[in-house]
Amino acid sequence: MVKIKMSFTWITLFVILFSCAPITLAQQKVFFTKEIQDDATFKVLETFLSDTEKEISEIKFEKGIYHFYPERGLEMYRYISNHNDELIRTAFPIDNYDGLTIDGQGSEFIFHGRMIPFIIDNSEKFKIKNLSIDWAMPFHSEALVVANDQEENSFDLKITKEYPYEIRNDQLVFVKEYYEHNLGQAILYNPERKAIAYDTESHTPLTLYKNSVSSEYLSEIKYKYEEDPRDPQHSRMGKENRLRVKEIEPGRVRVYNHNKKLPRVGLILVSKGEQNQNRLAPAFHIVNTYGFTANNINVHHAGGMGLIAESSADLILDSFNVTPSKGRMVSTTADATHFVGCRGKVELKNCTFQNQLDDASNVHGTYQKVVKKIDEFTIGVRIGHYQQLGFTIGKPGDKIGFVRLANSFFAFEENEIEEVTFINGRFHLIKLKKPLTDNIKAGDLIENLDAYPELLVENCNISNNRARGLLLSTPKRTVIRNNYFHTEMEALLIPVESNHWYESGSVTDLTIVNNKFENCNHSGFNRGVIRFVTDDDNKNIAFHGVKILNNEFIQFDNLILEINNTQDLLFRGNVISHSEKFPKLFPQNPAVSVKASEKIEFKNNKYSGNANRILETNDVTEKIEFD
Amino acid sequence: MVKIKMSFTWITLFVILFSCAPITLAQQKVFFTKEIQDDATFKVLETFLSDTEKEISEIKFEKGIYHFYPERGLEMYRYISNHNDELIRTAFPIDNYDGLTIDGQGSEFIFHGRMIPFIIDNSEKFKIKNLSIDWAMPFHSEALVVANDQEENSFDLKITKEYPYEIRNDQLVFVKEYYEHNLGQAILYNPERKAIAYDTESHTPLTLYKNSVSSEYLSEIKYKYEEDPRDPQHSRMGKENRLRVKEIEPGRVRVYNHNKKLPRVGLILVSKGEQNQNRLAPAFHIVNTYGFTANNINVHHAGGMGLIAESSADLILDSFNVTPSKGRMVSTTADATHFVGCRGKVELKNCTFQNQLDDASNVHGTYQKVVKKIDEFTIGVRIGHYQQLGFTIGKPGDKIGFVRLANSFFAFEENEIEEVTFINGRFHLIKLKKPLTDNIKAGDLIENLDAYPELLVENCNISNNRARGLLLSTPKRTVIRNNYFHTEMEALLIPVESNHWYESGSVTDLTIVNNKFENCNHSGFNRGVIRFVTDDDNKNIAFHGVKILNNEFIQFDNLILEINNTQDLLFRGNVISHSEKFPKLFPQNPAVSVKASEKIEFKNNKYSGNANRILETNDVTEKIEFD
Repeated sequence: MVKIKMSFTWITLFVILFSCAPITLAQQKVFFTKEIQDDATFKVLETFLSDTEKEISEIKFEKGIYHFYPERGLEMYRYISNHNDELIRTAFPIDNYDGLTIDGQGSEFIFHGRMIPFIIDNSEKFKIKNLSIDWAMPFHSEALVVANDQEENSFDLKITKEYPYEIRNDQLVFVKEYYEHNLGQAILYNPERKAIAYDTESHTPLTLYKNSVSSEYLSEIKYKYEEDPRDPQHSRMGKENRLRVKEIEPGRVRVYNHNKKLPRVGLILVSKGEQNQNRLAPAFHIVNTYGFTANNINVHHAGGMGLIAESSADLILDSFNVTPSKGRMVSTTADATHFVGCRGKVELKNCTFQNQLDDASNVHGTYQKVVKKIDEFTIGVRIGHYQQLGFTIGKPGDKIGFVRLANSFFAFEENEIEEVTFINGRFHLIKLKKPLTDNIKAGDLIENLDAYPELLVENCNISNNRARGLLLSTPKRTVIRNNYFHTEMEALLIPVESNHWYESGSVTDLTIVNNKFENCNHSGFNRGVIRFVTDDDNKNIAFHGVKILNNEFIQFDNLILEINNTQDLLFRGNVISHSEKFPKLFPQNPAVSVKASEKIEFKNNKYSGNANRILETNDVTEKIEFD
Repeated sequence: MVKIKMSFTWITLFVILFSCAPITLAQQKVFFTKEIQDDATFKVLETFLSDTEKEISEIKFEKGIYHFYPERGLEMYRYISNHNDELIRTAFPIDNYDGLTIDGQGSEFIFHGRMIPFIIDNSEKFKIKNLSIDWAMPFHSEALVVANDQEENSFDLKITKEYPYEIRNDQLVFVKEYYEHNLGQAILYNPERKAIAYDTESHTPLTLYKNSVSSEYLSEIKYKYEEDPRDPQHSRMGKENRLRVKEIEPGRVRVYNHNKKLPRVGLILVSKGEQNQNRLAPAFHIVNTYGFTANNINVHHAGGMGLIAESSADLILDSFNVTPSKGRMVSTTADATHFVGCRGKVELKNCTFQNQLDDASNVHGTYQKVVKKIDEFTIGVRIGHYQQLGFTIGKPGDKIGFVRLANSFFAFEENEIEEVTFINGRFHLIKLKKPLTDNIKAGDLIENLDAYPELLVENCNISNNRARGLLLSTPKRTVIRNNYFHTEMEALLIPVESNHWYESGSVTDLTIVNNKFENCNHSGFNRGVIRFVTDDDNKNIAFHGVKILNNEFIQFDNLILEINNTQDLLFRGNVISHSEKFPKLFPQNPAVSVKASEKIEFKNNKYSGNANRILETNDVTEKIEFD
């Protein structure tokens, strides 16, 4: 083993060449010392830029606190699923590596502004371990509710110096390094529980908008093609700010004109700005990568998701924890993890997903809409949601299913991808291997039947976050085992929907076993703790082969299980008890609701809750009894 | 000659193969008929995408009106000098072509929304002719001033259905297809003259902003590196909207709180939105292209410049006309043409540049600032202006000059480029061929001494536009001959500046001959019709070798010629007469001002103006007389 000091004189890094490496390519090991910690960006980046042969197999950091600034980061335009597409910078452009390991050895990485800490593209067997990720200034803001006044319909926020702000034309703007946001999406946290406040939906989201008063000649604008009312351009139309704010004293801001119940004193209002502008800096963006392992990673913050993986395979997260730092209520401002069009295995093991502002995980494919038959083999497809722009649905050889959801949740015809051509974020060409049949029509959806993973979520703590625990939309074997859930919406949501998010995939082999669900759904939505649901109002079967076994439900409210459009579900050995933690929100609900489903079996469950009815059925022909 | 119907069944195009082509590559000719005119985008685009071997030598259009929509255009992220950098779409991605000609045969191309009509990259000998470019809805808006009220300090705008609008929170927003803008940058047009209104500077720009009242803890934000106060992020800080608007009746909007003189009734207020958001769709974007010829092209509109060329050579524009259509006051919303870092020849011949919202042409290089010595051969440079982000200063072999403007306007040391590495829009690495001397310091500027063109502007009509006629910043031979100028600011501006725009280059061989200058500088700026000026307040020579011969000046105001920091200037055979077109704005001015200059000679000129003094000198040691 030989130590060589590299010739970049401005970088103190040591490269260890393995002369006995078993493969022909030289394997380089890079070690960064704390000397670079004030701004490690360019020194780390230069290592990647100079490694044109992709020979580095390991990058280690001396344990320390390393800062990363955007000024000297590599810039690229990224389409990022479920985020804003954007020009962004990074110190870690990990592209086309096979077998690279990054080991922080317990280091903290502190990012400043608009950066993506780790961008992993087109790689294999990438490993990362032993480091934490945080931002010096977060992309969200927190403020304590210190007063409210029913008469003048106002509430007061106490804002500390961690959250610099300006008021411009009666609007509150939080100012960060290289970023700013308005109130936008906001929710209440209870600082005692360090979790989403009970019944926050009565108080939030803030009623940001009202209809604008004057609007002239807009009908003169003729659109030749379908427009997306949710995209940033259209979503501004016809609306103006409803809320007004006034500074009462430095650090105390009064908010007027909210049109829901006033936030309660003592709660913390968490705000992250406009919906279509606030997802810009996920901690990990992984694309076309086969083999990703994370061990002992702590993501304390991200301006977006903790990890977003697209079109990748075999992603193993073990002790990948999303938790807030520095007394903040919030960790990441969107999902802790999210997997789109992935395959092979996705495993989340021994993870803590706490206080993020969206789901702990969401595993799904995408629907894209046929808008034009181009030729005998080629269709033009429209990407439905503005946060999926640029998403490539598959690779050559992948099996494509054509879907017409009003008729069936499952594909009526299959074909195979020959080639996908990017035209623009919204419009792709897909050349297929077999000729298109006459059956295919504009308006049909396609999904990639090969791009769904097996999923294991085990020994995880999912709690105190906004939104759901897990969204499960993969037909492959899915096991949810030994986890703890305390979420403000559903703990487990199993959806099929095609009108809004265009997130495809259903479950056909799902086992939910030995989990503990405690006081979920406490924010105000009338939903089951576990919920199977479609957005297409028909009686077709969407979900198959579900086992819910030996779980514990401790729940303040009635509704535990909400089953729609499901076939072959076994609910066995579960224990349901009542908690006095919160007042009931929906006391009329049964414990279990079954609708448009068949072969639903309940066996050996213990119910000690206090709902008036345990079981309610609708559109069910067979006899079902709760046992 | 054989006609073959191509197998793209959805495109009706005919490809004529020249079997007798003298070169080995097949030369293809493509002909588009009017069948595709409803939306020609995808059909044109597919032609380029399928031409992977770049074999097309000619694309002709049957004479017609062709529409282009963004929905099926090719999308790419573009860094565009003097524009916004952005994700943009096109039907004409002309990349890596040699000898391609596009002939519209008199067609009109109508664009919709955020598109760049022609993107020409890395090409040679590209020709385009016989077509016009317009937008269905322009990126600016026009409104007639129908009333003003001194007492309540308001004025009323009459807005017609060509300009749909909304009022949101007392702010006027003009809504377009796929775009919107607020009042932002605005100026007054006189509809009778169809030109910028006399003395508009007393009334415009609109006073959009005032200081925001509340601003807390902003000093807590520590920036490690130099920040740009002009970039979009920083320029919002500490300001809020000053103007308020109210709809009086549909189509009539009252504007309150303007802090200059109220616009006069009968004038047209032209508005194009925020300064850092309104340059997004130039008609031509040309990069790294050697040989560009345009003949008989009419650009009636663009949301930006008519033509922006970067790092290209030999650009010949003959009858390239920028003029408004459909009764609009405005043609392009920025410069008619603009050339950055170009070389070889730039020629503008027989062109009309009218009613654009910025200069007719601007020819310059860029300064970039040394911020770090990376190693013996490599510097890190910072790009100074946010609209130059991503601009590559040169190619291997180019001669670089190091400049310290406080000492001299000319390079104190030279070197040669080995390689430029893009890190991000703001920061590039430049490896040089010779080692860096100790003399080079952080803060020094570099310019590319090879990237300046010879320039000929001949037989052009430059009138009725906002801003200057020509900005001349090239040390190569420059001839301005036989043109007509009627501009609201200087007809000819010869600057050196480094603090704001970072536009480099000086003149050392400039001939201005046989031009007619009529009533320029009528909008309110105290400047010469021809003006040599630096922004560095010293007495060093910046300009050399200037001949101003046999021109005619018909001018309502006094100041004709403003000479600073100039050596060796001959002003001969010029005729200066007085016009009663407008009242004088600056009656105290002399006709000629000379400062910090030497070898300035006046010969055989005729002055029949009525300035009190013809010649004023400052910091001039030699004796100068006006003859």
